[in-house]
Amino acid sequence: MIPIISVVGKSNIGKTTFLEKLVVELKQRGIRVATIKHDTHSFELDKPGKDSWRMAQAGSDQVLISSPNRMALIAPSDRDLEPEELVSRFVSGVDIVLTEGYKRGDKRKIEVSRREFGPDLLCSEDELIAIVADQPFDFATPQFGLEDVVGVADLLERDVIGPAGGRGIVVSIDGKPLPLKPFVEKMLIESIVGLLKGLDGTEGREVRISLRH
Amino acid sequence: MIPIISVVGKSNIGKTTFLEKLVVELKQRGIRVATIKHDTHSFELDKPGKDSWRMAQAGSDQVLISSPNRMALIAPSDRDLEPEELVSRFVSGVDIVLTEGYKRGDKRKIEVSRREFGPDLLCSEDELIAIVADQPFDFATPQFGLEDVVGVADLLERDVIGPAGGRGIVVSIDGKPLPLKPFVEKMLIESIVGLLKGLDGTEGREVRISLRH
Repeated sequence: MIPIISVVGKSNIGKTTFLEKLVVELKQRGIRVATIKHDTHSFELDKPGKDSWRMAQAGSDQVLISSPNRMALIAPSDRDLEPEELVSRFVSGVDIVLTEGYKRGDKRKIEVSRREFGPDLLCSEDELIAIVADQPFDFATPQFGLEDVVGVADLLERDVIGPAGGRGIVVSIDGKPLPLKPFVEKMLIESIVGLLKGLDGTEGREVRISLRH
Repeated sequence: MIPIISVVGKSNIGKTTFLEKLVVELKQRGIRVATIKHDTHSFELDKPGKDSWRMAQAGSDQVLISSPNRMALIAPSDRDLEPEELVSRFVSGVDIVLTEGYKRGDKRKIEVSRREFGPDLLCSEDELIAIVADQPFDFATPQFGLEDVVGVADLLERDVIGPAGGRGIVVSIDGKPLPLKPFVEKMLIESIVGLLKGLDGTEGREVRISLRH
């Protein structure tokens, strides 16, 4: 499973600005990043009449547009999908996923705080792996200045992306992740890695298998 | 592997119009469909300054936007990805993928033809599973009228989506599909289905596994 870190903070506090600088810093280090923006409202990505819009209107469950330099996928959903489900279904080939706007859930979080928005935080100490702020907090959580993307990137590289980061397995049936007990996870990983041994090196790389029988 | 059928034909012959009607017919039958539009030019999906655009500009390898009723994914690519690779990386939970604009490759194809565009076809007889036209061809390939989406949907349901359709396995390492010999495919499917037995029924359903160790 690709590690997911959520950047949270009060409205307009500068989450996107911080994320933007953090992505640039991580990319400079050769780290592959996906970002997820949570939009509680609806959004429009395409223009009425365009081919991809026509396909979505006709009821396609997923519409992909592919060009030589980028691709886009649009999929309807019947509920607000959690980042874990979005990542297991749609994200591949990255080392870390940074999300914005997911306050709930037990994801590891970085909170952005600024003095002019008040002295309190949205999250409790045990939910946070870092605080990015222009004011100090009486917490043991590592704290960084608003511009200190180098410090935060060091922390992510050491504790989240490092050798222990992103290990694990997700199995989904018809798009829905299957809950797995830790010993079943371990058994599946060992068995599948054993099966693939000899085909290609898999150590530390992301393996995806899609099958129907 | 989800079956992929490519709708081809000369420029402006009515491929999108036909696809649109076919998607409506398939959806009415409860069949889940993804469509892929091949755009040989670049395309813009987002507005400068919007958060998702800022993330793409900052260098995110993948940008996802999620709302309660739809999600969108934008990913840069360094080359023109083939439908097989797009499907194995990004598409899940559908029964068939219909593509438009992929003339090359050994995908199974449906060609749309109209008399006013001339009496010749782009594809040879052995590439086509159906011809949709307002003129007859001296081919053994099944032929349908321009409005006969019912006939084409029957054919797809019988020969492509049916019990034999979409069976198989795709294994990718860091996003790149691994070429597999048929006996290796068979061995992997049997072993993995054996491992998952008891966790949940997998017969005829799409199983996806994502792991890193």
